Amino acid sequence: MINVAVNGYGVIGRRIADTVALQPDMKLVGITKVKPDYKARSAVQKGYKLFAIDGKSKQTLSEAGIPVQGVLKDLVSQVDVVVDSSPEESGSQNIALYRELGKKAVFQGGEEHELTGFSFVAQCNYEKARNRQFVRAVSCNSTALCRVLHSLDEVFGISKANVVIARRATDPDDSSKGPIDAVVLDPITVPSHHGPDVNTVLPNFPVISMAMKIPTTHMHLHTLIVSIKVPTTTDAVVTKLEKTNRVMMIDGKKEGFKSTANIIDLAREIGRPRNDIYESVIWRDSVKVIGNEIYFFMAVHQEAIVTPENIDAIRALVGKTDQSESIAMTNRTLGIRA
Amino acid sequence: MINVAVNGYGVIGRRIADTVALQPDMKLVGITKVKPDYKARSAVQKGYKLFAIDGKSKQTLSEAGIPVQGVLKDLVSQVDVVVDSSPEESGSQNIALYRELGKKAVFQGGEEHELTGFSFVAQCNYEKARNRQFVRAVSCNSTALCRVLHSLDEVFGISKANVVIARRATDPDDSSKGPIDAVVLDPITVPSHHGPDVNTVLPNFPVISMAMKIPTTHMHLHTLIVSIKVPTTTDAVVTKLEKTNRVMMIDGKKEGFKSTANIIDLAREIGRPRNDIYESVIWRDSVKVIGNEIYFFMAVHQEAIVTPENIDAIRALVGKTDQSESIAMTNRTLGIRA
Amino acid sequence: MINVAVNGYGVIGRRIADTVALQPDMKLVGITKVKPDYKARSAVQKGYKLFAIDGKSKQTLSEAGIPVQGVLKDLVSQVDVVVDSSPEESGSQNIALYRELGKKAVFQGGEEHELTGFSFVAQCNYEKARNRQFVRAVSCNSTALCRVLHSLDEVFGISKANVVIARRATDPDDSSKGPIDAVVLDPITVPSHHGPDVNTVLPNFPVISMAMKIPTTHMHLHTLIVSIKVPTTTDAVVTKLEKTNRVMMIDGKKEGFKSTANIIDLAREIGRPRNDIYESVIWRDSVKVIGNEIYFFMAVHQEAIVTPENIDAIRALVGKTDQSESIAMTNRTLGIRA
Amino acid sequence: MINVAVNGYGVIGRRIADTVALQPDMKLVGITKVKPDYKARSAVQKGYKLFAIDGKSKQTLSEAGIPVQGVLKDLVSQVDVVVDSSPEESGSQNIALYRELGKKAVFQGGEEHELTGFSFVAQCNYEKARNRQFVRAVSCNSTALCRVLHSLDEVFGISKANVVIARRATDPDDSSKGPIDAVVLDPITVPSHHGPDVNTVLPNFPVISMAMKIPTTHMHLHTLIVSIKVPTTTDAVVTKLEKTNRVMMIDGKKEGFKSTANIIDLAREIGRPRNDIYESVIWRDSVKVIGNEIYFFMAVHQEAIVTPENIDAIRALVGKTDQSESIAMTNRTLGIRA
Repeated sequence: MINVAVNGYGVIGRRIADTVALQPDMKLVGITKVKPDYKARSAVQKGYKLFAIDGKSKQTLSEAGIPVQGVLKDLVSQVDVVVDSSPEESGSQNIALYRELGKKAVFQGGEEHELTGFSFVAQCNYEKARNRQFVRAVSCNSTALCRVLHSLDEVFGISKANVVIARRATDPDDSSKGPIDAVVLDPITVPSHHGPDVNTVLPNFPVISMAMKIPTTHMHLHTLIVSIKVPTTTDAVVTKLEKTNRVMMIDGKKEGFKSTANIIDLAREIGRPRNDIYESVIWRDSVKVIGNEIYFFMAVHQEAIVTPENIDAIRALVGKTDQSESIAMTNRTLGIRA
Repeated sequence: MINVAVNGYGVIGRRIADTVALQPDMKLVGITKVKPDYKARSAVQKGYKLFAIDGKSKQTLSEAGIPVQGVLKDLVSQVDVVVDSSPEESGSQNIALYRELGKKAVFQGGEEHELTGFSFVAQCNYEKARNRQFVRAVSCNSTALCRVLHSLDEVFGISKANVVIARRATDPDDSSKGPIDAVVLDPITVPSHHGPDVNTVLPNFPVISMAMKIPTTHMHLHTLIVSIKVPTTTDAVVTKLEKTNRVMMIDGKKEGFKSTANIIDLAREIGRPRNDIYESVIWRDSVKVIGNEIYFFMAVHQEAIVTPENIDAIRALVGKTDQSESIAMTNRTLGIRA
Repeated sequence: MINVAVNGYGVIGRRIADTVALQPDMKLVGITKVKPDYKARSAVQKGYKLFAIDGKSKQTLSEAGIPVQGVLKDLVSQVDVVVDSSPEESGSQNIALYRELGKKAVFQGGEEHELTGFSFVAQCNYEKARNRQFVRAVSCNSTALCRVLHSLDEVFGISKANVVIARRATDPDDSSKGPIDAVVLDPITVPSHHGPDVNTVLPNFPVISMAMKIPTTHMHLHTLIVSIKVPTTTDAVVTKLEKTNRVMMIDGKKEGFKSTANIIDLAREIGRPRNDIYESVIWRDSVKVIGNEIYFFMAVHQEAIVTPENIDAIRALVGKTDQSESIAMTNRTLGIRA
Repeated sequence: MINVAVNGYGVIGRRIADTVALQPDMKLVGITKVKPDYKARSAVQKGYKLFAIDGKSKQTLSEAGIPVQGVLKDLVSQVDVVVDSSPEESGSQNIALYRELGKKAVFQGGEEHELTGFSFVAQCNYEKARNRQFVRAVSCNSTALCRVLHSLDEVFGISKANVVIARRATDPDDSSKGPIDAVVLDPITVPSHHGPDVNTVLPNFPVISMAMKIPTTHMHLHTLIVSIKVPTTTDAVVTKLEKTNRVMMIDGKKEGFKSTANIIDLAREIGRPRNDIYESVIWRDSVKVIGNEIYFFMAVHQEAIVTPENIDAIRALVGKTDQSESIAMTNRTLGIRA
């Protein structure tokens, strides 16, 4: 049994906590929370042990009637692995505590690659992560791209990949950020950080990305143009993508997937918790080979896609389970088709 | 065991089908579907028997590889009660078939009151609906209002209610309709149809409504100004609302419910299927008594709120279960707190 | 000739500067600007003299090649009246400088009433503002409401006014703020500050307001329910509103004004600078008298509506022009119909 | 003097009418209108002669008090050139009338290339259009792309161009269409029609486009990846773009153009009618040469960009003015910098 702490109960942490609780070989020891809001209350209702970040937040939580089991350090002391899903770039402060207590930890894509020196995507480099102390599960966009580019590279030999990312501007539960009726270049300069981030996992070909923020809350939309070395056909590419782990192929025309909204609706229909889509979602009828380039559209559920990667990363750090076994176990618990 | 058909597998029908399947005293015999899209496929995966609307749609579905058990008439013949959740105003065409086959039916709020002569809200008039052949479950907005106004009227005696409805413009899975950056008066004239619709259930005081469409997909937002006859206090009103069935009180400041988005997020956190909120949701800290008027904000999940009403309406038509037993059973299966 | 400074060149300040420049009896001496962005460049291209807020911003502007004539104090020294359109609540810091230099000043609705002790709406209380040193032009929402309520009160005797305000969440040129797909209660508690703010101008009847933010950038939408003492008819109310200064009556059905977007489109069609609508805009076909209450919808162009008020406030402070002459002059230069 | 009719007074027609009226060598004889809405009224207020489409619309307009000068045929009979800005694909019906009356006509990008056999962009192929009877001004997206690709091809020799178009979903005055919170693939298949449409003007290199609709109303956002034959530098590309006619270079960081909203705001600041941007707008700091590819972001004001092209097309058909003279004259009247 792997004892796990989830430090940070935001968009990512909440999902990882629930998913850890589903694993046959893991135990969720506790989570951390700062404010006594409805998320804290629902965590308590699920039976999760709740720890404060510090003395001050412990007092705030207690005064609001939320039972608190201690502070972060108390929690970390009790576990084998910490998943650090604290706010962006605070992982770089928390790592000192994990080091001090000799604990393993998984960080998120908001941190720099250099923090752990190892950027993780389960189907790309699980084995190399085994028995490490620290890894970083890359961001939602990088995860989605790594899965797909790694798979295509295996067969077709990628020489270069271009990706244009139309990013959802903020998550569904945040009502403070915009834009409302505009496209924000983010960043204005080329390339965006996404391509280089993919290269921390897949270093063998350039990935040149450009990104913008648009007024949506559900899913990033990737437009891919992948230059390959081995001539191929549209059908062969579709076949390879169909067989790629954690990729979901959908059909826009035949099945009615006109927009990203239909994908979230599918998640609701099939009963996914929180309408989560863990897979990189590719429109089958958008795939097209023209000359030596593969074109397609891909949707990425920014809230959910790193959930399985974090679970696999926990197992990789502990080192007892191999790649295919871990991926299969995670997929099974999350309802990802084999 | 009540044998139930769900005719129409759209926003409302899908939810009713799943909820019928949860009831200990009901059996979902089948559903109808027109197009072979992902919703049809997921229905089949759930084990639902799928019927076409007519010969043409039967052929379309079959050609797409969807197993079809027959057409609408075949389905209706096999059941005790039909829930008609077909597109707006087509219920008035379907009723002839139900009459011909001598079946009971529940219609939706998109139909006119006159179609059945009985507009239904479980906690307002269940007993009067018992053993009828046909009832109409009123629309999402009317359902939410009836629950709350009926309850307040019991204690405080309503003399008049004003409500301003900021309507979500379309449902989350529809990407064709707007507006994108505008407020649409809908209708421009005063009053909107909502007040009179509430009066089909609660005829004893005027309800004057005004409505607009805004660029959101989740929840209608009601602003209520309720004139009462019995002087009271804010606390007394809160207490009465707390005790009202199918009303959820939330706290904006203490619990972090800043917007409608947080309510949907709560549904995701507590594991509600499709993040559904069946309750009329009232911000406790918005309730205020000034003079002889009660003020508050209420959010209404347009996709979900009529689900429990339809289930209760089925039981009312069959006539064997009384009001409190039916409501309790429905609430239990949907996770609505007692 | 009244020498005028505009301190702050944001959403409001830019409009006031352009409008001061149109007045036959005023001279725009200069404006202040902090950043060397496209707004600074276009001000220079219009021939406006640009002053920095302080030494630091003077350097930043100069280094970017923007000609700077001095700092705020230099500008204020040269004028009769300052329009303070600096960021919200910084007026309370600037007032000391205006006092020190013995200058008159108009502040904006973002400041507290107490800052100047006089809240100004031209058609309500111009004469009382004459020869004062300081006044505050009230906010966009208050301005729109004061015009209309003052006019209705004259004839029908208002006993109470309720208003529900669906606020545009941010201005069109801001792409940082949301919400994107939610309604934010702002504030959650009742009443919002808008009603009491109207009462700083019109103290004789209660105005109870409730407000929410919605994902639009153009115009606030007011829903009004006005209780009156003198029985009347819908026609009589329409006639009175038609005759009210700075009110534009539109017809939703006959003229095609379905939404706030059509009103902005009208401004574009008739060549209003920056598509500005200075009038309180009321849908004629929404006006309805039911019992002793008047109901209607009103749209408020948040960027533009206080422009004429600021111009009139300048003249009121100087004291040489009477109310009707000032209003007529301002209206003429802005194309507001008599 | 060229006598011009504008058939269709929608988004495009209104702008062309106003711009024809500005030309020293043209006379706007009249426009056509179907409904008696605020657009009809403002046209009359501008002094435009208004013609109905047919007898029925003539009656509707007359009954609403709009003065009507006759029907379409009456108008066409009086002019040298018709600009057909009628609803999409109705141009193919109107062309018979223009032929019958022996009139020249400019059609819009909503029509097929085959309708006229000549797709027009002023700076690409003006001279070839001289004295033709019919041309089609290409769509907003194609116009923007043709200007820029034609210019880059002159110096750097384009071998292929990829463009990803994030399309505004509908125009600002339309409140019926969405999406509200989704990205719609439009089309799902690759390529979209935009690339082939550019090739009707510039046939010498492939243009492969992919397109999606997003919830905005202002400007399309193009992401370009242009493969070139002649090695170059980022600076050289910027210099060439700076010198390209009807291209506006903006600086995201230095001048504060974070989003498309800032570009529309600029148009408001500099007093462009209807806040129109006639230029292809390129972020200077997004331009980047990597290997043999040029990368950049471009914004396209869908309502306005074809306005100057239509004016030039009128002159080309008449044949008396040469390319550079026409472009210069049009630019001068619209405030487009030389």
